[in-house]
Amino acid sequence: MHDLATRLFPLNRSLTGPGVRATLAILQQEMPGLVIEAIPSGTPCFDWIVPREWHIRSARLTAPGGEVVVDFAHHNLHVVGYSIPVNTTLDLEALQPHLHSRPDLPDAIPYITSYYAENWGFCLPHRQRQTLLPGLYHAFIDSQLEPGCLNYAELVIPGRSTREVLISTYICHPSMANNELSGPVVATYLAKWVMQQPRRLTYRFVFIPETIGSLCYLQRHLPHLKNRVVAGFNITCVGDEGEFNYLPTRHGQTLSDRVARHVLGQVAPGYHRKDFRWHRGSDERQYNAPGIDLPIATITRSIFHEYAEYHTSLDDLTLVTQNGLSGSLELYRLFLTCLEHNGMVQTMVLGEPQLGRRGLYPNLSRGGKVGEELDMLLNLLAYADGKTDLLALAEQIEVPLWSLLPICDTLIRQGLLALSFPDDDNPATA
Amino acid sequence: MHDLATRLFPLNRSLTGPGVRATLAILQQEMPGLVIEAIPSGTPCFDWIVPREWHIRSARLTAPGGEVVVDFAHHNLHVVGYSIPVNTTLDLEALQPHLHSRPDLPDAIPYITSYYAENWGFCLPHRQRQTLLPGLYHAFIDSQLEPGCLNYAELVIPGRSTREVLISTYICHPSMANNELSGPVVATYLAKWVMQQPRRLTYRFVFIPETIGSLCYLQRHLPHLKNRVVAGFNITCVGDEGEFNYLPTRHGQTLSDRVARHVLGQVAPGYHRKDFRWHRGSDERQYNAPGIDLPIATITRSIFHEYAEYHTSLDDLTLVTQNGLSGSLELYRLFLTCLEHNGMVQTMVLGEPQLGRRGLYPNLSRGGKVGEELDMLLNLLAYADGKTDLLALAEQIEVPLWSLLPICDTLIRQGLLALSFPDDDNPATA
Amino acid sequence: MHDLATRLFPLNRSLTGPGVRATLAILQQEMPGLVIEAIPSGTPCFDWIVPREWHIRSARLTAPGGEVVVDFAHHNLHVVGYSIPVNTTLDLEALQPHLHSRPDLPDAIPYITSYYAENWGFCLPHRQRQTLLPGLYHAFIDSQLEPGCLNYAELVIPGRSTREVLISTYICHPSMANNELSGPVVATYLAKWVMQQPRRLTYRFVFIPETIGSLCYLQRHLPHLKNRVVAGFNITCVGDEGEFNYLPTRHGQTLSDRVARHVLGQVAPGYHRKDFRWHRGSDERQYNAPGIDLPIATITRSIFHEYAEYHTSLDDLTLVTQNGLSGSLELYRLFLTCLEHNGMVQTMVLGEPQLGRRGLYPNLSRGGKVGEELDMLLNLLAYADGKTDLLALAEQIEVPLWSLLPICDTLIRQGLLALSFPDDDNPATA
Repeated sequence: MHDLATRLFPLNRSLTGPGVRATLAILQQEMPGLVIEAIPSGTPCFDWIVPREWHIRSARLTAPGGEVVVDFAHHNLHVVGYSIPVNTTLDLEALQPHLHSRPDLPDAIPYITSYYAENWGFCLPHRQRQTLLPGLYHAFIDSQLEPGCLNYAELVIPGRSTREVLISTYICHPSMANNELSGPVVATYLAKWVMQQPRRLTYRFVFIPETIGSLCYLQRHLPHLKNRVVAGFNITCVGDEGEFNYLPTRHGQTLSDRVARHVLGQVAPGYHRKDFRWHRGSDERQYNAPGIDLPIATITRSIFHEYAEYHTSLDDLTLVTQNGLSGSLELYRLFLTCLEHNGMVQTMVLGEPQLGRRGLYPNLSRGGKVGEELDMLLNLLAYADGKTDLLALAEQIEVPLWSLLPICDTLIRQGLLALSFPDDDNPATA
Repeated sequence: MHDLATRLFPLNRSLTGPGVRATLAILQQEMPGLVIEAIPSGTPCFDWIVPREWHIRSARLTAPGGEVVVDFAHHNLHVVGYSIPVNTTLDLEALQPHLHSRPDLPDAIPYITSYYAENWGFCLPHRQRQTLLPGLYHAFIDSQLEPGCLNYAELVIPGRSTREVLISTYICHPSMANNELSGPVVATYLAKWVMQQPRRLTYRFVFIPETIGSLCYLQRHLPHLKNRVVAGFNITCVGDEGEFNYLPTRHGQTLSDRVARHVLGQVAPGYHRKDFRWHRGSDERQYNAPGIDLPIATITRSIFHEYAEYHTSLDDLTLVTQNGLSGSLELYRLFLTCLEHNGMVQTMVLGEPQLGRRGLYPNLSRGGKVGEELDMLLNLLAYADGKTDLLALAEQIEVPLWSLLPICDTLIRQGLLALSFPDDDNPATA
Repeated sequence: MHDLATRLFPLNRSLTGPGVRATLAILQQEMPGLVIEAIPSGTPCFDWIVPREWHIRSARLTAPGGEVVVDFAHHNLHVVGYSIPVNTTLDLEALQPHLHSRPDLPDAIPYITSYYAENWGFCLPHRQRQTLLPGLYHAFIDSQLEPGCLNYAELVIPGRSTREVLISTYICHPSMANNELSGPVVATYLAKWVMQQPRRLTYRFVFIPETIGSLCYLQRHLPHLKNRVVAGFNITCVGDEGEFNYLPTRHGQTLSDRVARHVLGQVAPGYHRKDFRWHRGSDERQYNAPGIDLPIATITRSIFHEYAEYHTSLDDLTLVTQNGLSGSLELYRLFLTCLEHNGMVQTMVLGEPQLGRRGLYPNLSRGGKVGEELDMLLNLLAYADGKTDLLALAEQIEVPLWSLLPICDTLIRQGLLALSFPDDDNPATA
């Protein structure tokens, strides 16, 4: 995964344009079934309009003495995203409003955009900015804003059921590793893994520009998604080695929330529970908006807005590690494992079954306590009342859902338990 | 307000009689729309009967040596309320059962009544009582119990909606300031304020004798009140400078409770939550009785039964201050403000609106946190799902409801939000 | 009760056989209405089959030197329950798998059974086992497993209502006092007490072998029980002087749970709340199984599996005391008292009634607090809204249900309160 992130890192992604297309083309090599879509500039999208495409060839800020202050060729972050073309000479005072730096991180190039209001600017380390001398500077940006399209991609991996899991991640940030490349990279490897598994559910992976991309996608597919999606996650900030953060859905009561809390509670009990009111910041804002109401939660490692390197050049491939990516992938695999097997469980005999004659219970009764595994089996039978799903049951008897799966198999083979998915063939309810 | 209390203080109010009528006449000068009603003695009222009217001209207890022990002319509290006429000479021992004093408050004249069983008596400071010498005393009470009526008054201030707020206060206690004059005084000024405001809701102010008065009022208007009243408060003990006490409705779950807890939580977070089971003591007992079930809570400062001066001559116009009265009036204004604007809120676009082009969001994205005001606006849009009222939303996003009102106005003007009051024209549901 | 336990102690009870029949015959002397039933061996019962009857005449393990190691005549626990006949000579090493002892309780004879797999064995104190010398031992068990029947008994004490309370206890353990004789002994005295009381509810007492007995009983009567039983208890381990343990039903929300928590909270507030998931161990396992779902909770003193003497010869008639038995009987009487009187309560006047003219309230109003008894009466009237049962009301106003009964009587006589039992004549709902 770290290698894939390394290949994607140099591309100059933005909301639109060639950087996005190059990114999606590389992802398509990894997932040949990935379908790339285009929505023309100017298309209305709920309260928004798809913007023009942004092309940038080169950009340079030159000091009075002729030396180059910053050059877009050195780092994509040096130019404010969606900068309009400029070729002008101006003194330092007039230039200052077009310069962006971070006094608190004097060595970082900040990441700045101006998608929806025409503007231009350069971003540079604060330490460097402080050395600029008065005089005439030359600002040159060879860019273009022209009708084009907004690109995104999706991969639908069908299962036996029409019920879907939605995995969403974004591909609009240039040259930053945790936010955002960790997202598409983990999503890609999660999709590869799903394709290799026997599947009940259908999985929908979308790779979109943030905000306008998710809005476009929702506008195209909202009724379908509302009918089909039973759970889902927005994957971002999953590449460093920080502790996990769980950002609930708006009310925190969906299946996605239940799965996230269950898995994190079992494998990362020190995880942080964030608050949708104060900490939301990515596409969960759109998926959870009133009237959209899709069950999409966000589980990150170091979460956006809170880690020092966020939205700067310091968010690079040293912050993101293979170890960090792998741990996140494993977590998401457990999420999907829980979703796959979360049927309604029902004990198929009245009273406790006679387990002794099936070799599942010691025949010699000593009156002592039975072991942990047998406790799990007995509790599963005692609580599988046909009105409880496996996830609720696992929570109730305080064991990981996945530890119940081999026991379920045994009991189902013995005719003692049924696991059913009543909504699987129902096309109209989520 | 303190001046009005001062004018009302000397009147000898009781359940019935001229003191009540004089009181209501003064209130009518303040609120010309106030309607004074009369219910004849003997009228059955649920489990009760409207008592005879009590008139008292003079009363005096004279000591063996001829000196006057107490004289009704000096303080209304010297005579047990509803004392029957008496003109008799008796020795100290026979007199004692007719004397009332408070050993724990030796300088206070206690307030004693015997409305529903014929009796007579004098109330005096315990210190004075202890000086009484053996000998023959002359007890003289020139009073009368005769058919008359029970008086109360009401003021209905109509709004656009048939939904009503009920404000109830009582006018049956002679010469005591916190319990009770603070109640009718604050209610009067609250009514004057309501009359000056644009209004959605209809406001019903009632000034009644306690217990029998609220029962009479309920008997006359119960179906109407059950259909119309959405919230309300019993105003009493609101004139001193003690901390606020919130006495919930019977189950503590009505709109009145929600408003009271919201406002108090914001402006007086150290308020005391009392318990309906152990602390009820005023007309909330009738409004919350089974089968009545009106949503009437009681919010006081120093609450009845708990402050030292309660039901004695020490509850006077030094205990009650203009400052205390004003703070209570302000609190009740906030209650009504919350009720007025508590509609269902619904965001009118799908997904987050593009606030930037409306000047409501910075166009230059720096990836930092937005300000507190913008947070409020974004949270309002994120939680206004059409199933939540503004009060629940304010509680959910932890801001005062009133701070959301200018933001609501902006968003409504922009077509981004709707605030609706679905029950407003519904005559049959509360 | 201790005498009855003493009579029952020596009998060699097991799942089936003459010890059970002798036990039930003695109980029938105490409760002449007790009906004894028989179900033939081989009868299918849910997932189980009624086993053959076990008869044992004598058993003896003889040491190489000819001295008797253990003899069934000395203690019923010396032979593994349901041992098949054996008459063989074997060396110590071959004998060891057939010997059972408790290193942690070196002086106790453990209680071991092998009901559903053919086996044989002897149980002895660990201290004695350690003295056994190598050599040839003679194992002799004169037993028989042959078609017969499983016996149980029931006593139905009819009330005015078709609603039933189910009391279940078991009679299959030989020569142990707390688990189990305390159960049938307290159940017997509880039944005798019920027969002497005026009754609304019908009471069903069952005396069954554990597990297979409750399953057989449920198979015969499940629809009836599901329609009629409103509450019930499994009585076991109620004879020692340990603190009370409450083992809830599966979800802990039935009327039985509410009654148990209420009574224990009032009379034994230090009681221990056990967990159905980890601590169930007796017939509550069957009564609470999915699809059975009867409201049967288990309240014990020292609970099975947790006290040192459990399932050994140390659980004898010194551990169980008359004092322990009496305290448990008293507790169960309170359970039944609460169930008997737990109707829906409704105040029959609107507003507070005028209690003064009924002699229920002081006529002279001093503004102070009323007493505790009057507080109870006022709270009863204030909360009896026709939707609350007496138990919920007692919990709400924090008094024992039984302390409300004389007050209910007074108020009902005065026409101020109604206590009704709407389900009493409904044959089809529990």
